[in-house]
Amino acid sequence: MKAARFHGRKDIRIDDIPEPELRAGAVAIDVAWCGICGTDLHEYLEGPLFIPPAGHPHPLTHEQEPVTMGHEFSGTISALGDGVTDLSVGENVVVEPYFVCGECAPCIAGNYNLCTKMGFIGLAGGGGGLGEKIVVDRRWVHPIGDIPLDQAALIEPLSVGHHAFVRSGAKPGDVAFVGGAGPIGLLLAAVLKAEGITVIMSEPSAARKAKAISTGVAHHVIDPTTDDVVARVLALTDGVGADVAFECTSVNAVLDQLYDLVKPAGVIVNVSIWSKPATIDMQKLVLKEIDLRGTIAYVNDHPATIALVQAGKVDLLPFITGRITLDRLIDEGFDTLIDHKETAVKIIVSPEVSDVA
Amino acid sequence: MKAARFHGRKDIRIDDIPEPELRAGAVAIDVAWCGICGTDLHEYLEGPLFIPPAGHPHPLTHEQEPVTMGHEFSGTISALGDGVTDLSVGENVVVEPYFVCGECAPCIAGNYNLCTKMGFIGLAGGGGGLGEKIVVDRRWVHPIGDIPLDQAALIEPLSVGHHAFVRSGAKPGDVAFVGGAGPIGLLLAAVLKAEGITVIMSEPSAARKAKAISTGVAHHVIDPTTDDVVARVLALTDGVGADVAFECTSVNAVLDQLYDLVKPAGVIVNVSIWSKPATIDMQKLVLKEIDLRGTIAYVNDHPATIALVQAGKVDLLPFITGRITLDRLIDEGFDTLIDHKETAVKIIVSPEVSDVA
Repeated sequence: MKAARFHGRKDIRIDDIPEPELRAGAVAIDVAWCGICGTDLHEYLEGPLFIPPAGHPHPLTHEQEPVTMGHEFSGTISALGDGVTDLSVGENVVVEPYFVCGECAPCIAGNYNLCTKMGFIGLAGGGGGLGEKIVVDRRWVHPIGDIPLDQAALIEPLSVGHHAFVRSGAKPGDVAFVGGAGPIGLLLAAVLKAEGITVIMSEPSAARKAKAISTGVAHHVIDPTTDDVVARVLALTDGVGADVAFECTSVNAVLDQLYDLVKPAGVIVNVSIWSKPATIDMQKLVLKEIDLRGTIAYVNDHPATIALVQAGKVDLLPFITGRITLDRLIDEGFDTLIDHKETAVKIIVSPEVSDVA
Repeated sequence: MKAARFHGRKDIRIDDIPEPELRAGAVAIDVAWCGICGTDLHEYLEGPLFIPPAGHPHPLTHEQEPVTMGHEFSGTISALGDGVTDLSVGENVVVEPYFVCGECAPCIAGNYNLCTKMGFIGLAGGGGGLGEKIVVDRRWVHPIGDIPLDQAALIEPLSVGHHAFVRSGAKPGDVAFVGGAGPIGLLLAAVLKAEGITVIMSEPSAARKAKAISTGVAHHVIDPTTDDVVARVLALTDGVGADVAFECTSVNAVLDQLYDLVKPAGVIVNVSIWSKPATIDMQKLVLKEIDLRGTIAYVNDHPATIALVQAGKVDLLPFITGRITLDRLIDEGFDTLIDHKETAVKIIVSPEVSDVA
């Protein structure tokens, strides 16, 4: 079968590899669509980062490069391994793409997203969504009912947004500020709005601002290049400040604003990945008793996330900005996301090597 | 009566001022002992900081310098204002030294320590513990039963430690790391130990290390100049890390260690006051889903703090390292704390102008 495999930095190849073998307790899936994640871009441009390099196999998968990529995918069950009785062949599913040890303190505490050996399908081995077929342990397979398979490829990044929402402790009626309308900022905003929270976004890019408005995920969109973000948020909240604020840019100037625009005893969740240290005004964090919380991936978020989409509370279709086939992964996928990152939100890839657009 | 008043930077004078008048709903107190706080030192050396300078009266007290100093004090009730029926003349008390507006969003939410107009007795006006007598609204007066008046002067900073403990969410059986064995670090450790939490402290100063050991507040004391702090904490916690960690130094190198020595999904509470921005490794905060929480002063902490002392779970006596009279406030108080900050923990002041030592 065909699969996009990482052989090294800027060396991703469409290889012919053997189909994965079904095993007891696992599910065989024909992949339908797989989204390209910012993490995939980082691996392509700067990797291997999470991908185990040659000579350093992953402690759980025991695999190393070349590995099949892709962790945001949907598909249809083609076969069930021994002992799997609660799913059906032909059922559409998404995959929560984890490898976890089950033995470390975070795993035992239920925080499997913090597993000390944690790996991701599509990065650490075990195949990936950028291949035609995959076999995944039953635990990680989530049925999606009648959610279209193209939109379902976005459930993985939507779950990232859902987990950030859970980490914030925001509740219906609250006001949330989201700094940055990139893919994760937009999908987080979609979750927040679906949960009955008022969403204020800031974003300098005209294309991304337009997306935040056209998708309807933000109640208010502020342009930080022309508006005083803190003053606008305070004006929109009767001078009190937002209940929660999310950092989705890894830009220090955005983080700096959050201490001033969040209410006393408010919560700031850092969603973005920082490649450099951040500077914070600790005095503001202290005097307002702010909680600054990290969030990574998801833990038990998929069922609630899928339910939001099934209930029509989140419409994922507007976030799909491109559909390509596997053979165009680099030129129409990665290169488009790198060169047109402000207009491209989510490009999804069909593992078939033929035009589907 | 005699009172130590702040007239300007490095200009604190023992003045003769009128006695405060009793008013309805308030309590007249003869001050017994008043501790000198790090905040008082900052005002003396770099102020006015919290003290309202001339021309800028405090919005709640409408006072400006000169103001009487001192907010860590105990005393005996000398008279009760109209309407105060649940206290008695002759009863020993401490004061929670707040002025709050009662009208802002944090006050309405119950977070009166975050009041947007908040002021402190002994800084913002309203008299202070470095005077012979004071009149305080009933709300802020807490009876102390048979706790000795000298030790009771330390209940205010102990409440700061109690509130930091509450902010951390630590529970009996947990392991806490406290970075820094200054006065607040030591008193915080005393609260933690009293609450059934294992305390690991780090401290480079020999005198402070000795204090952490002799007072018995720390189960383990690590010297960061000779030991690998992170490795020691991991070794003491079976490789898991501390459940919670407290930053009590405002030293960035100490803050940096906390991300590595706290467990995944752990909590870091910043207790110290930073006069400069802090640098944080956001990636560690994200990948371990750490909560970094600010804490300031106390809110509803005095009753529980007093109960810890009454029950004998915290012994405040070893933290009193000096007793002076008001006329020696600068030379034996402030100067000692500035010049011998590693050996002096808490110096308490009697408002009487005579030798008491």
